[in-house]
Order: sequence, then C-alpha cells, then structure tokens
Amino acid sequence: MTPQDVIFRRATRADLPAIVRMLADDELGRQREQFKTPLSESYYLAFDEINSDPNHELIVAELNGEVMGTLHLMFLPSISFQGGVRAQIESVRVDQRFQGQGIGSEMMKWAMERARQRGAHGIQLTTHKSRVDAHRFYERLGFKGSHLGMKISLK
Amino acid sequence: MTPQDVIFRRATRADLPAIVRMLADDELGRQREQFKTPLSESYYLAFDEINSDPNHELIVAELNGEVMGTLHLMFLPSISFQGGVRAQIESVRVDQRFQGQGIGSEMMKWAMERARQRGAHGIQLTTHKSRVDAHRFYERLGFKGSHLGMKISLK
Repeated sequence: MTPQDVIFRRATRADLPAIVRMLADDELGRQREQFKTPLSESYYLAFDEINSDPNHELIVAELNGEVMGTLHLMFLPSISFQGGVRAQIESVRVDQRFQGQGIGSEMMKWAMERARQRGAHGIQLTTHKSRVDAHRFYERLGFKGSHLGMKISLK
Repeated sequence: MTPQDVIFRRATRADLPAIVRMLADDELGRQREQFKTPLSESYYLAFDEINSDPNHELIVAELNGEVMGTLHLMFLPSISFQGGVRAQIESVRVDQRFQGQGIGSEMMKWAMERARQRGAHGIQLTTHKSRVDAHRFYERLGFKGSHLGMKISLK
C-alpha cells in the first residue's frame, strides 16, 4: 500500500472504538482514556455533539476498510483577523502499526486542503513540548512553532 | 475604581467597535485588523455567528458603562478525555488605558469560573513566544506552558 491508497472521510459512530483505541494508545492517552467494550456512553454523547455541529469534522483515515488514523478538525469563528475563521486541529493519531509510512503527513495535507476550502485564514494546533519528533513533523508541513501553549486543569 | 467594580457580560453588536479597537491596538493586531467607522461587514458577520453558537461566548469587561476588556471563551467538544469538553480562550485584551490594575486577572478568573460551571475539564490558550509578560501573567493564574503552539497561514 502507499499513503495515496488511504481514504479520508467523516467518522461515524461505528468508528468510535477504533478512534478511542488510538487515542488511548500512548503515554498521555492511557491516563486519560478508557478503552473498553462497550465504550462509555460519554464518548457517544461527545460524538453526537461533534457530528451535529457543522464547525466540527471528526475525520478518519481508512485503508482496505480498516481505520488507522484520526484527527479532529474544527473551525472557530472569531472577531480577530477581520472576522476570519481559524481552523484548529486536535487529537491527531496514526495507529502504531501503520506509523512511519507517511500516513500522518497525507492526513495533515488533507486537513490543510479542507481548511483552505472552508476559507480558514490559518490553522493552529498545539503539541506537547516533549514531542520533538512531532514538532519536526509539523515543521516539515510548514507550521511554525511561534507560540507557547498553556493549559490549566479544572478537575 | 477597583477590579471588583468591573462587570463581565456577553458582548452585543454595539460593543463591536470597542472590541475591534482593542484587538487592533498592538503590534500584531495593527497588521491584521481594520479599525474604522463603520466597521467592515465581516466583523458583524463573525459576531452573528459567534453569538448564535452556544459553544462560543464573546465577553466584555465594562466599567461605568465603558467597555475596557474583552475575551473570547469557547467550548470545544472532543472525543479525548472520555468525551470531555475543553475550554479555550482567544483574543484576550485590556484597553491600554486600564492596564496594570488587575482587570485582566479578574477577567481570566471570571472565565475560569465560567468554564468550570460549564463542565470543562480544562482550559487552553496560546500566547506568542515573545510575550514573556503574558506567560508570567498566565502562570500566576495557574496555567502551565507545557505545549508548543504551532500555526500555518493559508493566505
């Protein structure tokens, strides 16, 4: 297979277990997610909200009927940039078994093209400071690490 | 006046000129915004979209009937964090004439309380790497600069 064989499409409810499995499959994700069968109802409720909001697109990458990548593309209306729309990407994951084959890169290029189609003036994302490989990956795609991403937990 | 005299409320269309004036009033903003009378229609279209979306709250800080601060609080549904809602803050500004009096801090505390009420598990924001004073400001409020914020322009 080549990355060009991969299909990108909106996620359905049936894709949720595959999506959560990928989100749970790293060090940070293991602490945050609960990947079990059946999935907790909270995942389905969140899916329904995302799916019914035209400013959110939960995307999966599929090869031969198997989901092996995901990202969440969102469009944020804003007063800044003369009332411009900014795109934001969250929860980017490629199944460990399929990493290193250029699929993440194809997925991001697809998202960039989609954001352009929808008239976004730019795309933003954050990535943990420790993920140096991810920084290089996004830099190769043209992203600039110009900002500090700050978070606070409310729990 | 003290920061406690400041009222926080949802912005109305009538607040837009004051909001755009504040957004335009710094080095980055000057290049991006067009503050003139009347404002370009694109600002009003963006306001209408934000105002009609329950996941977006455009907030102003008001003292004696005058708007002197603004922020855009948004709630992002997500599959991650077990289908949790993350809050995000964009476009934080305090009128230059009112800076250094603790208003920004009150505004952020208000937003944090609001995000808590709405059940967000955390808040995220990005700030330009060069804004060292802003980093310290957010750190004092409890934010941690754990992430790299990356952007790409599509124009």
